[in-house]
Amino acid sequence: MPEEVIIALDAMGGDHGPKVVIPGAEIALQRHPGARFRLYGDAAAIDAVLASHPRVAAVSQVIHSDVVVRMDDKPSQALRRGRWRSSMWLALDAVKNGEAHVAVSAGNTGALMAMARFNLRTLANIDRPAIAAIWPTLRGESIVLDVGATIGADARQLVDFAVMGEAMARALFGLERPTVGLLNIGVEEVKGLEDVRTAHQLLRDSNLPIDYQGFVEGDDLGRGSVDVVVTEGFAGNIALKTAEGTAQQIGQYLKDAMNRTALARLGYLLASGAFKALKEKMDPRRSNGGVFLGLNGIVIKSHGGADAEGFASAVGLGYEMVRNGLLEKIVADLGDYHKERRSMVSPQANSVAS
Amino acid sequence: MPEEVIIALDAMGGDHGPKVVIPGAEIALQRHPGARFRLYGDAAAIDAVLASHPRVAAVSQVIHSDVVVRMDDKPSQALRRGRWRSSMWLALDAVKNGEAHVAVSAGNTGALMAMARFNLRTLANIDRPAIAAIWPTLRGESIVLDVGATIGADARQLVDFAVMGEAMARALFGLERPTVGLLNIGVEEVKGLEDVRTAHQLLRDSNLPIDYQGFVEGDDLGRGSVDVVVTEGFAGNIALKTAEGTAQQIGQYLKDAMNRTALARLGYLLASGAFKALKEKMDPRRSNGGVFLGLNGIVIKSHGGADAEGFASAVGLGYEMVRNGLLEKIVADLGDYHKERRSMVSPQANSVAS
Repeated sequence: MPEEVIIALDAMGGDHGPKVVIPGAEIALQRHPGARFRLYGDAAAIDAVLASHPRVAAVSQVIHSDVVVRMDDKPSQALRRGRWRSSMWLALDAVKNGEAHVAVSAGNTGALMAMARFNLRTLANIDRPAIAAIWPTLRGESIVLDVGATIGADARQLVDFAVMGEAMARALFGLERPTVGLLNIGVEEVKGLEDVRTAHQLLRDSNLPIDYQGFVEGDDLGRGSVDVVVTEGFAGNIALKTAEGTAQQIGQYLKDAMNRTALARLGYLLASGAFKALKEKMDPRRSNGGVFLGLNGIVIKSHGGADAEGFASAVGLGYEMVRNGLLEKIVADLGDYHKERRSMVSPQANSVAS
Repeated sequence: MPEEVIIALDAMGGDHGPKVVIPGAEIALQRHPGARFRLYGDAAAIDAVLASHPRVAAVSQVIHSDVVVRMDDKPSQALRRGRWRSSMWLALDAVKNGEAHVAVSAGNTGALMAMARFNLRTLANIDRPAIAAIWPTLRGESIVLDVGATIGADARQLVDFAVMGEAMARALFGLERPTVGLLNIGVEEVKGLEDVRTAHQLLRDSNLPIDYQGFVEGDDLGRGSVDVVVTEGFAGNIALKTAEGTAQQIGQYLKDAMNRTALARLGYLLASGAFKALKEKMDPRRSNGGVFLGLNGIVIKSHGGADAEGFASAVGLGYEMVRNGLLEKIVADLGDYHKERRSMVSPQANSVAS
């Protein structure tokens, strides 16, 4: 009998709502029979889809909500209109109230983060949450954070990201000592990098059991040089989108090349198994799901345009994070780190300690 | 009779020195018969290679220098050791003194930028130079700047980058009104973006003849949504390296996939023409060469590891930039812009005008 994990689903989130969320839940349920769902949203719309997904219906509870956060709502609008009552808010609320272990939404990122901060609050000693992305690499997968929760993290916040990302790598990849790197650019002695350099010193000199490998650059991301790459959210988001764009671009080049001549098309047919494997490797659905870290609860953001397969990945990610005790690991590690930080600061500088 | 363009080459720069620089110059000379070279570096080493490249020798002058800036010299070390006398410095000096129209070096970026700033100085009203990269896109090529000259450009510096990048797009692509976008991340209402938002307002409200299209995101780079993408150097460098890394990663996936089975290998053979076209499309040598903008002279940085083909691209880029009057275009446009800026500021706010 698998252990039950209760997953709160914002059934109205994303470009397709219940028509993707529920088939996605079905795929996730096949992979993780211990999953149980709480479905938040328009009950009539949800029930209509559930009718053809009896296996999901059997493990789900539907909680009606009239209010949907739109994909183009600004965070402030979403909070104004959707607080207390939207499907997104209620899914987060279930995590807060202990009715669910994790919330998954394909709704808009800014609104979901604003609501998650407002409702779940950040963990003790954490000012800024981060969004962690799972990045396919030549060595397997890495975790990259922050990919856009906030902008301009300072040195201590970057160290917090390192601690949280390292805990996630242990939970997700089952590694005992994941390696951690700090994203930087190659040129030394450039002004303006104070926060990145200070974070580098803090990580290098800390007594935390983190396997810190130093600076990495943009091309280390695809190489998988480290298991966890730490950066502030502006650069992280641009890196993520740039990689997605480049993959699409090369996919298009490849498609064009294989359609150029009859011989190329024949070659393509013969090698179709290889192309299929390549396509699977490059499939963005496999690594769909950003994890919000630094909150009192686990929240997974699926791509808004994800199909059922993609949404199932996000749901499966939430399931794994709960089963592997992500939140407990993060809370324990942050506790250790902030204890160390206080002990490092207080003896010599009372004015800095608070 | 083609017009002569005198190109100062740091013959000792890069991982391979004259063994790549001179064969590269030969390829560039075939493409641009008007090129003339001044070769700076160890005369014995240069002459040894020139002996087997008589066509380059016929249009070159060798200027001896004992001092080589090393690839791992920090900018401050390079300036200390190499000022006044290194091959890199002397190549830049030739531009300053009017002995050459453009300098090309495959030496280390930080040292080259530090020396270029020190020797050539920035243009009037420009605080920060930028490095402009030529980015292959689905639509052709775009210009992206800054990709790492400095970090944390403020709003006015971002506008300067837009003006300079737009001038370069006219010079390089022959466009009358290139489109310009500002790199941003999708989430609105996030704190910390003041400079990007202010630059957005300045570009939107300016009377400059710039076809400003607003914000673009990381995935617009490969798509080629605009001709010129403006960003500060940290995010720009990370985007550039991330794209390079992703292209390598997918190239490796493709190679692995095509070697998986005998059928895949056969398909690969049949489609080899298509794969060759793809490889050429993805060849980083085609777009080798970062252009330093904002200085009193044009400087081209080639990849340190470039081969002769790659170095020839950088030399060709320098040739084109001179022939198409890049520097004159930039100086004229910046003059217009700074005149407008003064007239916008002075009437109402004397304390701000300076």
